[in-house]
Amino acid sequence: MSTSIFNELNSIFMPRNVAVIGASPRDNYTYSLMGTKIRDRLFFVNPNYEEVLGRKSYASILDIAEPVDYAVIAVPAQFVLGAVSDCIGKGVRGVHIFTSGFSETGLPDGIRLEKELADLALGKIRVIGPNCMGSYCPKSGLSFNPASTNVEGSIGVISQSGTFAQIFVYAGRTMNMKISKMVSYGNAVDLDCPDFLEYLADDPDTSVIALYIEGIKDGKRLRSALEYASNKKPLVALKGGVTGAGGRIAASHTGSMAGTGQTWSTMFNQSGVVQVDDIDDLLNTTITISTSKLPLGTGVAIVTYSGGFAVVQSDMCVKAGLQVPQFSQKAIDKLRKFVPAAGTMIGNPLDSWQLFYRYSGEGRLSDVLRIVSGEKPIDTIILQFDIIRFMTMMWGEGAEENLTTIAADFLAGCRYARDEAGKLVMITIALDPYTDNEMERRLSIMLKKMCEEAGFPVCQSLKEAVRTVSYMCRYATIRDNRL
Amino acid sequence: MSTSIFNELNSIFMPRNVAVIGASPRDNYTYSLMGTKIRDRLFFVNPNYEEVLGRKSYASILDIAEPVDYAVIAVPAQFVLGAVSDCIGKGVRGVHIFTSGFSETGLPDGIRLEKELADLALGKIRVIGPNCMGSYCPKSGLSFNPASTNVEGSIGVISQSGTFAQIFVYAGRTMNMKISKMVSYGNAVDLDCPDFLEYLADDPDTSVIALYIEGIKDGKRLRSALEYASNKKPLVALKGGVTGAGGRIAASHTGSMAGTGQTWSTMFNQSGVVQVDDIDDLLNTTITISTSKLPLGTGVAIVTYSGGFAVVQSDMCVKAGLQVPQFSQKAIDKLRKFVPAAGTMIGNPLDSWQLFYRYSGEGRLSDVLRIVSGEKPIDTIILQFDIIRFMTMMWGEGAEENLTTIAADFLAGCRYARDEAGKLVMITIALDPYTDNEMERRLSIMLKKMCEEAGFPVCQSLKEAVRTVSYMCRYATIRDNRL
Repeated sequence: MSTSIFNELNSIFMPRNVAVIGASPRDNYTYSLMGTKIRDRLFFVNPNYEEVLGRKSYASILDIAEPVDYAVIAVPAQFVLGAVSDCIGKGVRGVHIFTSGFSETGLPDGIRLEKELADLALGKIRVIGPNCMGSYCPKSGLSFNPASTNVEGSIGVISQSGTFAQIFVYAGRTMNMKISKMVSYGNAVDLDCPDFLEYLADDPDTSVIALYIEGIKDGKRLRSALEYASNKKPLVALKGGVTGAGGRIAASHTGSMAGTGQTWSTMFNQSGVVQVDDIDDLLNTTITISTSKLPLGTGVAIVTYSGGFAVVQSDMCVKAGLQVPQFSQKAIDKLRKFVPAAGTMIGNPLDSWQLFYRYSGEGRLSDVLRIVSGEKPIDTIILQFDIIRFMTMMWGEGAEENLTTIAADFLAGCRYARDEAGKLVMITIALDPYTDNEMERRLSIMLKKMCEEAGFPVCQSLKEAVRTVSYMCRYATIRDNRL
Repeated sequence: MSTSIFNELNSIFMPRNVAVIGASPRDNYTYSLMGTKIRDRLFFVNPNYEEVLGRKSYASILDIAEPVDYAVIAVPAQFVLGAVSDCIGKGVRGVHIFTSGFSETGLPDGIRLEKELADLALGKIRVIGPNCMGSYCPKSGLSFNPASTNVEGSIGVISQSGTFAQIFVYAGRTMNMKISKMVSYGNAVDLDCPDFLEYLADDPDTSVIALYIEGIKDGKRLRSALEYASNKKPLVALKGGVTGAGGRIAASHTGSMAGTGQTWSTMFNQSGVVQVDDIDDLLNTTITISTSKLPLGTGVAIVTYSGGFAVVQSDMCVKAGLQVPQFSQKAIDKLRKFVPAAGTMIGNPLDSWQLFYRYSGEGRLSDVLRIVSGEKPIDTIILQFDIIRFMTMMWGEGAEENLTTIAADFLAGCRYARDEAGKLVMITIALDPYTDNEMERRLSIMLKKMCEEAGFPVCQSLKEAVRTVSYMCRYATIRDNRL
């Protein structure tokens, strides 16, 4: 990406001053931006108000004395072109148009309006949207949701869908989704996926990119941008509309051509992009890449408390292209000292509920993790810690203290496996969202936080963990093939 | 199943008196059974105590004056045979052996002990286990988990795994999983899957059967029991160990032969059993069958608030063998009156977030559901109601009242679609288990309860709903083929 275009996009994500056109006391952008550090460089424009949230409301952006780099336009569709004209007059570098009612309606009026917008902006101002959530950047304070965190991370997100952008925002609250910059770009009248890809590829704050895309106007440019970006950093993509019905609907969602699923898969593969199957995969894989090294192979060790899950998870692994190699006799002999024979399995998976309850002495989870991580055919360890409801039943109020001790122990084992033995370590903590066991909920949240603070990816189910490992392996293969 | 064998098993699930051998103040069975109505017909046996929970503890079951139909044996492995002998002496009809340390260890001692147990019991007493959780029956009060509900339902559950049996117990608390009888049967030294299948097939309290199985000793008998049961009621099965690694592990988990995945799939298909892929599928499909009629075909209508999900869900449907037929022009014309053109999609899926926020006037979700349910190619409607976090943001404290009004309205529409138009209606309410938005959590729980009380299956994600519909369709095909 040329320096001048990089700077152009950078002034959109890292603007000096920002204006909200159509600001009101009940407007989402007004609230979201007043909640971040950008509030000191924020101006409101709305001729219907003298003040918004106790701050002057300008009749026009042209009345603002200070320079404005970036404006959010949230006015009814018939006023959008006027607002953009004013922004051009003001010398604004980029606008985000939240307003919908353009080509995505499929109606002649909307299509015409979008064409007029394109003509008006061309060469004069850069446009995100219309029909989208716009940009989020904790470093500058841009936000489209008052619930977004101000944590500055390294995950860049590009989403053609506003809902999925929102899901990333909430994942910033409850998962280890630490975002550098995010954009939801909707109808893409001007700035399109390739622009954002190239920008995030060059952005020093971004180390991995997550992409949700439905369709594209210029396939050649997309392919070159995908290659450009994935040569610089890991790029994980979810394509919406890979089937006939999905494609038809994608076209009407954001007014773009969707192409066939096979065409897209081929393009992703050839461009070094990891294609995932659903939004949970996109979240988990991106988080895991951002926190962990790639596994060196497909061998998975499973440490679980449940024989049923051991069996089912082995099936899951094999179906996902992973392997569950048996432990060596030497490792089994060592494990045998700790693991009772009754009601357990000692090969791989290692199933022993007793280990999960041991908070003192020898033969604890950390011992097991150290032994298992020494096994050569093992590249990834999945620790299934889905037993907190049983701990609350067994220990009552004592569960918090015991669990804290147990977690400190197994995290030491996980650190050894990751830092000394070089294995990918995934932890699963399943929590029923509808549980009526408040202690289970509190302790699950506590444990998840401990694991995340120690830098480990945490999945909400075994299924998600296995899928994520398979994507990590796929990315490792892609990268090896390109070296 | 012969009347005498039915009566034999019935005295295990519906016993007159019950004994816990190895009862103690810290024992799980002691607590679980004292928490149900069976406490009045419960006896404790443990020579180490005079009293347990304020109740007399007998030195031997032979000391109890009253007849005992069923005994739970939770003593160390070396005392199990003695306890079973005493039970035979006492005239107990069935025992459940919780204790592990038998053939599942793979060790000569365990295998020999299990053989001795088999020989001892043969023809004298029926045995569930060893190495399992045993039986749960709200009607009689049998339970293996103090958290189990006393709601008497119609779902029968057979699980070779104890963990999965526990998952069903918790689903009874937080999902519409209303159980008639459940058994976790472990190593199956005597009573095995076919016995329980035939019993639940004949059980008038059971209308649908969920099965988790890893392996079987007598394949021919299993096939005949599967056929017998699925001729009488719907039977949904998850086979653990369908892959090479999974099969190897299944064999060591419960000491039984696993067979190849293909062999099992063929047997399930030919026997009229719906085979599912994981434990969530097993829960959701069983619940949906227990609450809903089968769809007449594979046409799905999607009513959502999100264009991104509309696209992705269409992909999901097509990949799962379902169809997303476009609505008729007539329906679209009717919908057009309610659905704003901007930022929505009006074909199928119907994507209009505005509809979800309307709590008065015309053009509400119920109107839309009535129109959509009149479409002939539509057999199932999936309503995606994953927007409560946005409602709490928009409405604050007013969200509860508005949501209650909205729910009453859309449930009227769902009832029409189900009862008048004969469609399968699925509702999804996604709730992040780790949300820190307490109001979102409270209202999600409230809404889920309202939907379940109205008799609708509720899934925790769109993905789960789509998968469940595909299993419902598969079962409909199986049933049609057998008529």
